[in-house]
Amino acid sequence: MSAKAVILVSGGLDSATVLAMAQDEGYQCYALSMDYGQRHRIELQRAADVARAGGAQEHRVVKIDIGNFGGSALTDQAIDVPTGTGDEIPVTYVPARNTVFLSVALGWAEVLEAEAIFIGANAVDYSGYPDCRPEFIAAFQALADVATKTGVEGKPVRIAAPLIKMTKAEIINTGIALGVDYANTISCYDPDSVGSVCGVCDSCRLRAAGFAAAGLIDPALATHVKHR
Amino acid sequence: MSAKAVILVSGGLDSATVLAMAQDEGYQCYALSMDYGQRHRIELQRAADVARAGGAQEHRVVKIDIGNFGGSALTDQAIDVPTGTGDEIPVTYVPARNTVFLSVALGWAEVLEAEAIFIGANAVDYSGYPDCRPEFIAAFQALADVATKTGVEGKPVRIAAPLIKMTKAEIINTGIALGVDYANTISCYDPDSVGSVCGVCDSCRLRAAGFAAAGLIDPALATHVKHR
Repeated sequence: MSAKAVILVSGGLDSATVLAMAQDEGYQCYALSMDYGQRHRIELQRAADVARAGGAQEHRVVKIDIGNFGGSALTDQAIDVPTGTGDEIPVTYVPARNTVFLSVALGWAEVLEAEAIFIGANAVDYSGYPDCRPEFIAAFQALADVATKTGVEGKPVRIAAPLIKMTKAEIINTGIALGVDYANTISCYDPDSVGSVCGVCDSCRLRAAGFAAAGLIDPALATHVKHR
Repeated sequence: MSAKAVILVSGGLDSATVLAMAQDEGYQCYALSMDYGQRHRIELQRAADVARAGGAQEHRVVKIDIGNFGGSALTDQAIDVPTGTGDEIPVTYVPARNTVFLSVALGWAEVLEAEAIFIGANAVDYSGYPDCRPEFIAAFQALADVATKTGVEGKPVRIAAPLIKMTKAEIINTGIALGVDYANTISCYDPDSVGSVCGVCDSCRLRAAGFAAAGLIDPALATHVKHR
């Protein structure tokens, strides 16, 4: 029987690609999504679509109400999603989000006796979040080595972030080659309830630039009509 | 205004002591508990009592359904709580629990702009969990340094585990000196719904031995009558 892996699936382009890469490596894939009070609830529906289309054995949605802490435009209705890109860490940053997500994935991986956890973190065409950088992934690996029963027993789970140094165009080309249907995915930070995208947030801009650089049409464009 | 700290408060003896130590250091204390589907629900009531008695500014309970993963006697009704102590990591171990708890605390600490996170982890009179050891705390500190906006800006939150090398008797004596009322706390892994303790689980045994070694009577004994 092939080894298991937990895949963090957000419903976005990056994690759909990572799921395909883990499948391609021969893993039995267990998709994990977080319901953390995100404004863009449509993400969770897309995550379910991505998990199904990507051949996951199972898809779990873990609820955690860190959104109540506030402090981010992605969970706090009082903060507007910005429509441009900038140099600083933006207000769309959700405090410690990837730390929390990887921690929960670590718990499930221990129970499943999974060999790896895959995360679609990317530090090239990204929004500048601290928890998307290679040093963050390395630090989490070091933590996993000492934090868990499997780690103590000499078989720590591997934290795989295969997109970390890829451009958005490279990510898209990799996914296309593996048969990913990006029509299932959504990247917008501020979509409406049926999944129409804003087209102007950081994430929409990075996605559009990625498809343009790859010389491809975004297959989600037909369904994700701009809502403004 | 004094600096803020997030204190992980479980309702047990250790975290009640840590809250008192943080108060004694002059912090404005923000108590954080997790509702992770623990069998011993009475813990959350005791956590509220401890937070109130300990002078916390606020007490938050964050729900996270990692209990659904199973794999631990503390969340899975199908696994019995053992009644003795052993050399191996016991079945009461909840996969990645302290990693998840500290991650959530890290998120709240960022929003609060807190200077420190206090956790009652202890590696002397403890159950042998991997995520209670000094190397775990050090690895989480290293993670916090790179995972967060405040860390990147050169002011990482401090992960404080002041009990890590103390015996249970030393912890109790420290708490008593700081005025902790241990009658508010509960340590049993398998209490009944009104907070009567089993007296025979690992945690009950460690607590009883700690009070005995400190030469003190456990003030909770009057209320926490054994239920078997």
